[in-house]
Amino acid sequence: MTAKTTEPIDPAGTGTDGRGAPGEAGPSAAAIEAGRRAYELDRSHVFHSWSAQESLTPMTVIDAEGSWIWDGEGNKLLDLTSQLVFTNAGHKHPKIIEAIKAQAEKLCTVAPQHANDARSEAARLITELLPDDINHVFFTNGGADANEHAVRMARLHTGRRKVFSAYRSYHGGTHLAVNLTGDPRRIASDDDAGVEHFLPAYTYRSYFNAADEAQEAERALNHLRDLVMLEGAGQTAAIILEAIPGTAGIYLPPPGYLQGVRELCDEHGIVLIIDEVMSGFGRAGKWFAHQHYGIEPDIVTFAKGVNSGYVPMGGVAMDDAIYATFAERAYPGGLTYSGHPLAAAAAVAAISAMREEGMVENALTLGEEVIGPRLAALKDRHPSVGDVRGVGMFWAIELVKDKETREPLASYGQTPAVMSELVAEARRRGVLPFMNMNRLHICPPLNTTAEELIFGIDVLDAVLDLADESIRGG
Amino acid sequence: MTAKTTEPIDPAGTGTDGRGAPGEAGPSAAAIEAGRRAYELDRSHVFHSWSAQESLTPMTVIDAEGSWIWDGEGNKLLDLTSQLVFTNAGHKHPKIIEAIKAQAEKLCTVAPQHANDARSEAARLITELLPDDINHVFFTNGGADANEHAVRMARLHTGRRKVFSAYRSYHGGTHLAVNLTGDPRRIASDDDAGVEHFLPAYTYRSYFNAADEAQEAERALNHLRDLVMLEGAGQTAAIILEAIPGTAGIYLPPPGYLQGVRELCDEHGIVLIIDEVMSGFGRAGKWFAHQHYGIEPDIVTFAKGVNSGYVPMGGVAMDDAIYATFAERAYPGGLTYSGHPLAAAAAVAAISAMREEGMVENALTLGEEVIGPRLAALKDRHPSVGDVRGVGMFWAIELVKDKETREPLASYGQTPAVMSELVAEARRRGVLPFMNMNRLHICPPLNTTAEELIFGIDVLDAVLDLADESIRGG
Ligand SMILES: Cc1ncc(COP(=O)(O)O)c(C=O)c1O
Ligand SMILES: Cc1ncc(COP(=O)(O)O)c(C=O)c1O
Repeated sequence: MTAKTTEPIDPAGTGTDGRGAPGEAGPSAAAIEAGRRAYELDRSHVFHSWSAQESLTPMTVIDAEGSWIWDGEGNKLLDLTSQLVFTNAGHKHPKIIEAIKAQAEKLCTVAPQHANDARSEAARLITELLPDDINHVFFTNGGADANEHAVRMARLHTGRRKVFSAYRSYHGGTHLAVNLTGDPRRIASDDDAGVEHFLPAYTYRSYFNAADEAQEAERALNHLRDLVMLEGAGQTAAIILEAIPGTAGIYLPPPGYLQGVRELCDEHGIVLIIDEVMSGFGRAGKWFAHQHYGIEPDIVTFAKGVNSGYVPMGGVAMDDAIYATFAERAYPGGLTYSGHPLAAAAAVAAISAMREEGMVENALTLGEEVIGPRLAALKDRHPSVGDVRGVGMFWAIELVKDKETREPLASYGQTPAVMSELVAEARRRGVLPFMNMNRLHICPPLNTTAEELIFGIDVLDAVLDLADESIRGG
Repeated sequence: MTAKTTEPIDPAGTGTDGRGAPGEAGPSAAAIEAGRRAYELDRSHVFHSWSAQESLTPMTVIDAEGSWIWDGEGNKLLDLTSQLVFTNAGHKHPKIIEAIKAQAEKLCTVAPQHANDARSEAARLITELLPDDINHVFFTNGGADANEHAVRMARLHTGRRKVFSAYRSYHGGTHLAVNLTGDPRRIASDDDAGVEHFLPAYTYRSYFNAADEAQEAERALNHLRDLVMLEGAGQTAAIILEAIPGTAGIYLPPPGYLQGVRELCDEHGIVLIIDEVMSGFGRAGKWFAHQHYGIEPDIVTFAKGVNSGYVPMGGVAMDDAIYATFAERAYPGGLTYSGHPLAAAAAVAAISAMREEGMVENALTLGEEVIGPRLAALKDRHPSVGDVRGVGMFWAIELVKDKETREPLASYGQTPAVMSELVAEARRRGVLPFMNMNRLHICPPLNTTAEELIFGIDVLDAVLDLADESIRGG
């Protein structure tokens, strides 16, 4: 028993989640008992992603609402993760739930070769949010298969095989997608998949000894251009890039970088695939993060925020040129649940709710007015905080051993013990942050309020003392 | 306007779908109007699987119930396809709909790293249906990613790379899965993916000049054994096989074949992956089709029937030896929606309903007592019917130009014009069959009644005259 179960937290103290203090309106004893059983069965029968199975002690989630979740002991936590950065409209949004229930009654599923109203409407809404010449959507089940199909389309469109993707990126877990990925999780599955990796523009940890963003953009572009020349521009089908790399560190591209990549692609007839699986659907304070940078991709891949993950769905949105390639010639790819009506109905409801309730604008404004300034202050206070950066509801805190040298608190691919302690302490204080290597990510639902954000950042501020102590010791 | 819209069909004449004659209880004028709009938007914005986009005139599905669907003009059709062979419990099963609605209210989604009661219970139920030493499930979104992860597990478990899969097979549309696939859809994406293809045991079109099933089993096994030796048994991670190959022709393995493959795997420490994506969850009249053949796979992949496709879900069920490999060592793979609660709740409800209502037994019995004998009679009557075969609710009719030579009505990879006419005529008469190359497949929901099956097969019987005429002409 932790302190919390006897002395429940009312974290924000505001009841902003509409369920009052958690002690009053939290999960029932029966729900907690069901959670206990869920945990036991999980340990006997569920195989988890990216993990050594016997090392796991997963947190049970027994309920959620808005920006809050309840763990297996009934503790109420502010969800700064949006789970895996997908509940953009928050947990249990009533409009999305209603749409799912209505579609479940109406028609859960049809095969992909038929036409269906929910799917058609989702495709219409999604293309409406994208550049004028992006008019078609190929629906998938998630982000990985969206990227796999985007690469296949680019290869067949160009008749070329090579694809360039960035180190410090994540594009999914299936074979080709994990080969596109540029993080340590790729290495075990590394294979000849026709993928070349390049060094990204990442100003805080410049691979190019750049002194500032302008230099970083210029040098990173020269590097990419060099590699494409050395590997053969005429052999290059596509460059795939997250608009803002997410899991790998929410490092915003310096001004001019994406435009430069766009120009490089135009010069050589290379397809530009922008992966908006994590950064899209309002996460970065615009419908799509690439809209911050004034470029038009040839292909946009998406998943997660499209329907807040209420029903699995992803997709490939393509421009008219790519579409034309497959107008008279069969596209050699497909999947059973492409354009699944239940998932599509959830997407229609999620996009509509986000529009009606101004969630994207809320993300942009609160990112600028609340998260940005508070993280800047937090950085000043903590010797262990090397960098804070982000936009919208998409922020990272990068922890270092030394602000001057920028030596990361953990070496690449490692998670330092103090990170786990820090997250545990944050949970004890009612906040669930996202952790990756030496970084904490702040990615709450887009409709999180200023009060909730302030509560969350205050808790992170307090627990970062642990990180400060750990480097003082060293 | 076809005859049907003015003179609606009451196909079975029995009202077995609980909605009376379609003219009375079919879709409203408003639903038909919505279907028209769905079609238009589909043509402007939806990119379809495996197709030249501008050649498509998709059928709109505006409603469905039990074994019946309604097309865009409000015509009622017996669904012998189960869409893409996934609505095993039929359309709009009230128990699955209720479960989805209840879970939507309770909690649509949590991240895969947490524990959740719906996911835990689905894993428990699924492993209960499988051999004793298969105790863990890694959930995916569909069949393709299930096979991708199964292969990765086998590779890491064995430390070997090569994987053998059969020609005339289908394993999915993502890069590695389509490379595993052995049908014409692979060819455009063929790549060095560490996959070797072998010739399957397919008695009706023996690649081994076999005179009967026993000879086919023996020779096909010798061939597979030869290839494994020639490529290196010590380099072979896995053999992947559909228990009963589905899309490629529902050709049942001859007695002894799968046992022989199992022995070959045992001899050389090769992982046997049985793909039950289409054949599983009752389709073949047992919970898993491999149970007809007395073998125990190391890994079983599934999707489709697990929840009748009401919410996208697939998975990898693995035995304790595979699990042990990832007990202390991280499995390098994952996905955002692994073990999605809404999909899991639908799986729990689907499996429970199938049990309570004896659907698997119904499939076995009616396959034996109704479909089998009627297709045998149909084969006798039609010169164009070369072979009929199947089990449970999983049957194929193979069309030929000549019963003696067995020359297929269409060459490999082609669809003859008469097949499309035949399907169109079947639809006109109220039946939707599944078509692939020179074959019609009969794969209705498992709870289809004898009366419905008789109606459906009678219609096929009638329209097969078209195929007979086409070969008489030639
Ligand atoms: C940028 C990006 N691309 C692709 C993916 C893969 O998506 P999924 O897990 O749905 O396959 C992710 C998942 O986190 C992602 O963040
Ligand atoms: C035997 C088999 N394996 C795998 C798949 C791929 O499943 P999905 O389309 O869900 O990726 C299919 C789909 O038809 C299948 O029949």
